[in-house]
Parts: sequence; structure tokens; C-alpha cells
Amino acid sequence: MSNERRLGRLTSLLRRRGIILPSYEIYGGVSGLIDYGPVGARIKRRVIDVWIDHWTSVGNVVEVDSPTITPEPVLVASGHVDEFNDHMSECGACGAVFRSDHLLEGLNPNPNSLEASDLDDKIADSAITCPSCGGFEWKGASPMNLMFPTRIGAKRGGRMAYMRPETAQGMFMLYPALFRHFRQRLPFGAIQTGKAYRNEISPRQGMIRLREFNMAELEYFIDPDELPNPDLGRWDSSVSLLPDPEGPHAGEHSMTFGEALGSGIVKHPTVAWFLALTWDFLVDVGVDPERIRFRQHASTEMAHYASDCWDCELNGEHGWVEAVGIANRTCHDLLSHQEHSGSKLLRGWRQFDSPRTETMEVLTPNGAVIGPTFKGDASAVADALSELTDVPDSLPFILTLADGTNVEVTEEMVTRRVEKVTVHGEYFTPHVIEPAFGIDRIIWHILDHSYSETEKEGKGYTILSLKQDVAPFDVVILPLFDKDGMGELARQISSRVSSMPGIHGDLDVSRSIGRRYARADEIGVPWAITVDHASLEDGTVTVRRRDDQTQVRAEVESLLSHLSSGTIGELF
Amino acid sequence: MSNERRLGRLTSLLRRRGIILPSYEIYGGVSGLIDYGPVGARIKRRVIDVWIDHWTSVGNVVEVDSPTITPEPVLVASGHVDEFNDHMSECGACGAVFRSDHLLEGLNPNPNSLEASDLDDKIADSAITCPSCGGFEWKGASPMNLMFPTRIGAKRGGRMAYMRPETAQGMFMLYPALFRHFRQRLPFGAIQTGKAYRNEISPRQGMIRLREFNMAELEYFIDPDELPNPDLGRWDSSVSLLPDPEGPHAGEHSMTFGEALGSGIVKHPTVAWFLALTWDFLVDVGVDPERIRFRQHASTEMAHYASDCWDCELNGEHGWVEAVGIANRTCHDLLSHQEHSGSKLLRGWRQFDSPRTETMEVLTPNGAVIGPTFKGDASAVADALSELTDVPDSLPFILTLADGTNVEVTEEMVTRRVEKVTVHGEYFTPHVIEPAFGIDRIIWHILDHSYSETEKEGKGYTILSLKQDVAPFDVVILPLFDKDGMGELARQISSRVSSMPGIHGDLDVSRSIGRRYARADEIGVPWAITVDHASLEDGTVTVRRRDDQTQVRAEVESLLSHLSSGTIGELF
Repeated sequence: MSNERRLGRLTSLLRRRGIILPSYEIYGGVSGLIDYGPVGARIKRRVIDVWIDHWTSVGNVVEVDSPTITPEPVLVASGHVDEFNDHMSECGACGAVFRSDHLLEGLNPNPNSLEASDLDDKIADSAITCPSCGGFEWKGASPMNLMFPTRIGAKRGGRMAYMRPETAQGMFMLYPALFRHFRQRLPFGAIQTGKAYRNEISPRQGMIRLREFNMAELEYFIDPDELPNPDLGRWDSSVSLLPDPEGPHAGEHSMTFGEALGSGIVKHPTVAWFLALTWDFLVDVGVDPERIRFRQHASTEMAHYASDCWDCELNGEHGWVEAVGIANRTCHDLLSHQEHSGSKLLRGWRQFDSPRTETMEVLTPNGAVIGPTFKGDASAVADALSELTDVPDSLPFILTLADGTNVEVTEEMVTRRVEKVTVHGEYFTPHVIEPAFGIDRIIWHILDHSYSETEKEGKGYTILSLKQDVAPFDVVILPLFDKDGMGELARQISSRVSSMPGIHGDLDVSRSIGRRYARADEIGVPWAITVDHASLEDGTVTVRRRDDQTQVRAEVESLLSHLSSGTIGELF
Repeated sequence: MSNERRLGRLTSLLRRRGIILPSYEIYGGVSGLIDYGPVGARIKRRVIDVWIDHWTSVGNVVEVDSPTITPEPVLVASGHVDEFNDHMSECGACGAVFRSDHLLEGLNPNPNSLEASDLDDKIADSAITCPSCGGFEWKGASPMNLMFPTRIGAKRGGRMAYMRPETAQGMFMLYPALFRHFRQRLPFGAIQTGKAYRNEISPRQGMIRLREFNMAELEYFIDPDELPNPDLGRWDSSVSLLPDPEGPHAGEHSMTFGEALGSGIVKHPTVAWFLALTWDFLVDVGVDPERIRFRQHASTEMAHYASDCWDCELNGEHGWVEAVGIANRTCHDLLSHQEHSGSKLLRGWRQFDSPRTETMEVLTPNGAVIGPTFKGDASAVADALSELTDVPDSLPFILTLADGTNVEVTEEMVTRRVEKVTVHGEYFTPHVIEPAFGIDRIIWHILDHSYSETEKEGKGYTILSLKQDVAPFDVVILPLFDKDGMGELARQISSRVSSMPGIHGDLDVSRSIGRRYARADEIGVPWAITVDHASLEDGTVTVRRRDDQTQVRAEVESLLSHLSSGTIGELF
């Protein structure tokens, strides 16, 4: 059985059982959009719940939720309006459009990092023909912005906006609220899960390259001058690392996270700590630890905002695929938003150990002139003067007030003095370390790694070995036959299971018991409860464990109490 | 203290404490967009979790998750492209744009249901002037579609799309997967939560009228010929109902849900059952039962898809506001999607009690002609002929195959016969009963109803009496002083609380203990644990209950075990 066929069978299972389906199929479908069906949506919700618990249990991390519609100025400041592009090449003969780097796949190690002219040269050198019509009349490669555009408001008063390309910007916008929430003390983090959007030119590979996808991001705000010393000792096994291919450590390495930090391969301790926490999360939700590796970006490949960036890649039917990106975004975003918005709320405060006395030049306001000149704004002018960090060499000069308006300050309005001032601390722009998770890609690999094809009584048999925490149902309840009161008892048990918070049960009454076990195994239900004739007499049921198909007999009450406390395994 | 001031103080609390904040504020904000901050996002997640548990515990209801980007043909079929409009009036003098019905508010009982010409007449009759410039030069009212438009894909190959105006359409698209999941047996339901979008002309009223909002919808698919008989007996108290103001029951009534169904005021038993379940949910999450009422739409007010529609309205600082709509959408959506897409997968199957013998005219294919004519498609033609329910009176005619292609069938290809056939059942288009919840509006009313202003030691004191299930933190942990080991013990307790699944704790170490209790009361934390000197000696802590501010002493271990099982109240 070739891999390609396995991929086909897995995809068809996901669709048939309502796990993942192409969207809008009755209208012909839209590539790059998927649905989570009645079984898949539950898996997705549970993966996200585990993710949220994983990060909030760090202690100084809180969840936020911001809009997906983002007005243009935010994305100008973040760099996405200028730089969130793929190059596309259009065939002059048939008009078909392709991602230029996809045309060069297999011919260039990293075509995504090339400029337009390089792409054109390499397409010409390799004599790439149009995959649609076979022609060779390429128009020059040109960048296409990958954001979905929209407009807020009625026509004349409308404002340009985009669907967010990442959840991160919403968290930078909320920085002032976070700083207040954490009582002005860094480090702290904000997480957000939700939809993000990327208008791919030609989406491929099922769940790997989506136009609308589920992200889960942590923005962790730190003081760049305070290097933490995380205890990486509890991660004592080696993992696979691929450092920067252009750097001194190029090549594949097997080492612990502690060693990777110690050797300087990972540059920042918080990045190393997040690589380790990412590893934990992935293994917790059922990714095969043997198919995880961390790949460092070469400097030519790095996103416009990052100074060090690692992809956590997972191996499956589509090869090695980036599922998590862990980036040191430095002060890029907060500083750029400060500059574009003029806001002073995007800073951290660093208290000195003891106050310092500094000599500095100041301009003290001359009230007799400033009062009559600026009237109601006089105190805003005085405040702005006292906040000046660089006093101008010559007057008059233009002073920007807190509300953004500019005023001219002339010689007679101020007195220039040299003062000794006591300084208790200083403002700085926090740096940001960001682990960004592609939830759909992670779910794909959980499914891929859990999917096994075996044989049973000479026929193919499929098991999805999902961990209970991310299984669509915790348990399936099966009356041996739907008669003689067995169906009724099964329904009673099912209804008691339904009322347990966080526990989901499925009731399956039709077809043979073997067929129903197979149906439950196929979607990864870890436990099956069978109600038979004996159940009606002695109140016991059969409990079956998916992973080794062993069965034990248990009292209904004891079983339900184990189910609600997550300890069914103890019955075996 | 006037209500307007209370609204101002509540809004300011929500913002200051990171519950609800205006979005993109450092760029001047965008009206109709809000953020849930570090405290609010947790409240929102918990409200949604309770909602999901509430509906899935019904038993035959499952969650799904579909894209927010919706291609145009789906929304043409649903009616949104043509009918999801508000009328806007533009001032000819200054160019400002307003919702025409808002200009008439207070002057007309239901201005939202008026046609353009009526709106113009009434604006003229009442001599409404422009709220911006005072002018009276209105251009005629014209409809503006309220969906956010976007485009999928690269320019030439791009497709028109919209951000979804409701989550419902995604569930109709998934009907075939749901029908399969539930093994072809109705009734069943699908729920979905997530963002929906409405490009309001002039959003007002904070969280009440948003451009991007959180919806939670159930689409419950039923056989219209099978009227269920839900047991409404357990809802034995009376609620406030306002039946159709143009119908025989106009006026306010106080009655049980059972009486409302029995008297014919509520037309469908499933609608009555959902009104009752909606009531339960709202009371569970902390809406004041005295401020809930159900208002039936007049036929002139009803959405384009509904045959009976009830608003569940909540009363608060913005008056009575629709927070849930419960509509009988009949077969509108599925039938329209059937007609627009040609799909035969949007149907239910009704098995007859015993097979029926029916006489019907059929066209049997003449293989000798059809084979050579259609070659590979011959069997598709034969299948389509056998599926014909109305045999055409004359030949030739155009036959549509399962894949949507049309072929011409001529006289010599078929034989016309009258046959007796055994019919086991029939296809039908399911009807849909939909409760649609506006999560943001519900959260607003939870906050509004929980917010109380009292006095303490002569000063104003604020308590948010949130139920623990929807509180941002279950518990706050407070060292009396952050010294002598008290801070350390508090941190240990906090870290153990953080590791409990589903339980969230906050640690607050700075300022006086009274000030910290006040901070926790203000955001609705139900329990406070104080670590003092005695804690270090005997392992006990003080547990304080928010709602009556009483305190008891408890062993740390016993307290943590009560916390994890949700039974702290038993300590008092």
C-alpha cells in the first residue's frame, strides 16, 4: 500500500465520518476552505481547550479576543500592507496564474525568498512551461498581497480594512490593557485563538494551505535587558534541531533544549523555553514525538518582523510541514505602532534599583506667555515640555502634544536651564517572543499520526488512536440489541453521560455490535460501554478499551464515576 | 444617581478592568468593533462553554465549524444578497449618511419594516432635519447591503464573496454530513459559535450594535409532518410574553411555556421547547429572570426566511434589547439551496409504516439507442430516467443528470409505461427551527444585571455578582503581606490552582488586603483565599465569599479539593 493511497484513504475517512470536509461542496467547493463536521468540530474544540490550559497554566498568561476586521493603518504599521506578499507569474498565453515559487519547486532550495527578477531568471533558465496550457510566455513575476480586503461602513464614509493575517496585531493593540492588568510588571503574555486569513493564489494540500485557518498565538512581552534563566532541566531527552543552514551550526543535531540554549544555537532563553513548552503541548495532544523537529530560519527566509525564528515542523503524509513558528519579534511591532499612532501607551517601565541623579537640560515654561497664548491647552504644552527627552538646540521648534497636535514654541515662552533631576526609572519598548500555532495543521498531524490500518478477520480495519483529551467522544454507549429494555438502559446511561460537564458520549443502536465497535474505533472513541441481557439483571456492563480491544465487566455506577473523574483505565 | 451615570460608570469599569474595550483605540478606534480584554475574554469563553454544554446535552445536537468567508452563490440562494439591507438616507447638504429608520425612531412603532417610499414620506411629514448639519435636503432612502464584501483568489480568477452575516448557512451547507452522521434519522441539530458580520451604517449603543459579533446558533432539522410532544411540565412558572401585536392575542401575557403552546400563541411545539431551553440558559449564566421577555414578530417585521419568530428580549441600561431570536425558518433555506445548487443531498427520508403500491407512469430506457448515443454516460441517463418523478407529457425533453449536465431525450430512446411500483417512503425537505443567540448582547446583560453599587465605610463599593461558571477567575489568592513566606505559600497555592483543568486563579500581592478584596469583587471573583501568619503555622487559610463577604477558616488541602470539585460553598 503506497503512501499516496494511505493519504487517499485517510482523507476519505475524514470526509465520510464528518471530521474534515471541503466547504461549500454542493456549490462546487472553494479551494482552501474546509469545514469541521460533527466529529471534527469536537476534536478541534478540545485541541484548543488543551492549548489554552497549557499556556494559561504558566501563570502570567491571559486570554484576549479581538476583531478579525482590521483597519488599514494597523496593518500599514505592522508591515503587512507592504510585505505580506507572494509573487505570482501569469501565463501570457492562457491567463492562468501561479505562485512563482511553486513553479520552481524542486529546482531551488528556497524559492520563497527570491526577488521578482531572480524568480523570472530562474523560470527562464529552467524553461518552466505553463502547467495549464504548456506555453512559455510568462509575464514578469509580480507581488500579490495576500490579505482579504474589505470596507467598513457606508460608501462615502467607508474605510479600507483587511481580514487579519494573524491574531497577533489584536494583542499588540491591547498592550495598554495588558500592562494595566498585570500592574505594570513584565514579563506577561496574552494568548488568542481564532480565525486568520491568507488569500492564497493557488491553495493545495488539503488542510495544509488554507485561505481561512485557525490560529492560536501567544505574545509574550519581556524586558530585553532582563534575560531570564528558565529551568530547562526537566526536558532531559534529545530532540531534533536544524539550525540556520547559513550559520556555524548548519546540519541536523540531536540535543536537549538546555544544550541548544547553552551552545548558542537558540539565541534567547525565552525562545528555548517556548520550544520546550511547544514540544510538551504537541506530545500531549497526540503528535508522534519521533516526527517533530525544530528548524531555524536562515536570515534570508525570516519574516519582516523577526530576529530569530524557529519552525516546529511535523512529518506526515505531506512531508515536513511547519505547524508552529516561534519567533523573537523584538520591539518591531510595538515600536512601529508607537511611531505610526503617536501613542505613548505601548511602553514598559524599568524601575532603577536606586534612584539616579542626572544632569539634564530642560525648558521650563514661562506661564505669563504660555497661558495667554495657548489658553485651555497651556497645561498640555507644559506637560509636553516636561516630557521632552531631547531639548532642541535652537528655538523656535515644533512641539507635539499628548493628543498629537503640534504647536510652535518660541524663545519667549520658555527658559533654558540645566537641572539636576532624580530619575527613578526609564521607559522602554518591550520585546515580544511569539509562539504561533497553526491549529489545522496540528489537527491534521494528530489525525495522520493516530491513523493506523490493520487487519481483523482477514479484512482491513482502521483505528484512530486519539488521546481521550482530544477524542470526539469520550465514550460510545451500545445496547447489544435495541430491545428487551437494553436500548432503554443504554439511553438512560447516555443521558447521564450527556449531563456530565466536559464529557461527551455517543449512542449507537443500529447494526451488529462488531460493526458498531469498528465505527467507534474509526473515529477514535477510547471507550465503549455495551449493555447486554446481563446488564438488566445485575447492573453491570462491558467496558471495552479501543487501543487493545480488551474488555472488562463493571458496575454502571462505578463506571460512570470513573468516567466523570477521567480514570476509566483503572478498571482494567 | 441617574441611570445614564450608572451606564457611564459600568462602561468605565469594563474598560478599566480589561473586560470590554473599544478596538484599535490608539488609532482612534472603529465604531462597532470591541475587544474582550484579559478579564472579559475569560467570561466570554465560559459563557460559550456553558452554551455548548447546554445544547449538546439535549443528546441529538452536535457542534460543527465552517468558514466565515462565504462565496456569493450561497448568499444569493439564502436571500442575503437581495434582502439583507438597511435603508440609508443621505443628506444632500453635508453628505452624512444615516439609517433611515433611526431618523424616525420614536415617531413610528416599527420603522425598520417600512419601504423606501414610506420612509421618505414619513421623514418629510415629520420634517426630520439632518443630525449633522441641520439641513433638510434628504436624497431618497436607498437600501444598503449590510454584508462585508471581499474577493477570494487572484485577480482574474477571483470570486466574489462576503463575510458571513450569520453562522446558519454553514450548517445548511453541512446538512448532508449531518444527515449521514445521524444515520438518516431526524430530528437532529447542529450548533455553531463564532464570528458573524454586519456592516452597520451607524453603529451605536456600545456592545448592542456591533459590526463584528459573536453568534451561537442551533439549526434543528425536523420532519414538518411529525409534530413532537415535548414535556413542558418542568417549566411551571410564568414568563412574560408579547404575542404578535397584529394578532388575536396582542398585549402582554404572563403564562407558562406549556400554556403559550396550548393556547396557540406559540405555533410549533419545538419553538415552545426552545423558548423554554433559552430561558434556562439565560438564567444559568446569570441573566435576571425578571428582566427576560419573549416578543413575537408581527408578520410585517419577520425576516425573509421565517414563518414564526420570537425575540427573547433582555432589559438593561439600553432598554429592552433582542438577545436571542427563535425562528421557524421552515424549509426556506434547504429548498432554496436545492434549487440553486441542483443538489439532491438536502433532503430527509420519511419511511412509510408499510410499503405502498402506487401506479405511476415511467419512461424505461431503450438500451439499444441510449447505449450508442451516450456511451459512457448511458447509465447516468438511465439513472436519471428512473429518478424522474414527473414524466413529461411530450417528447423530446431535456433531462438533467446527477452531475448537472443536460441531455436531450428523444422518442426512440424510451418506452412510456404505466407501472405498479412498491414505494417504501418518500423524500421531503426538512424544516428548521433556529434559536440564534447574540453572545455579546447576552454578556452585556449578564454584566449589567450583576453590577451593583453599594457603600462600604462611607465610600462607593462595586460588586459584580457573576455566577462562578462564568466568572473570569474562580478564585483570587492573596498573601496578607508579600513577606515572611506568605507570598511564597500564596504562589504555591496559585500554581496548584493553575494546574487544575478548567479552574482559573489570580494572584494579587500588592496594596492593602481591603483594596485587593475590592479589586476582586469589582470583576466578580466569587472566592478569595488569604494567606496570613497563621497559615504558615497551621496550614489553614481564610476563605472569603464575595456575595456576603463572610469568611471561614479552612485547611489548604481541603479547600483545594473543594475548589476542584466546585463545592467551596460547603465550607460555609
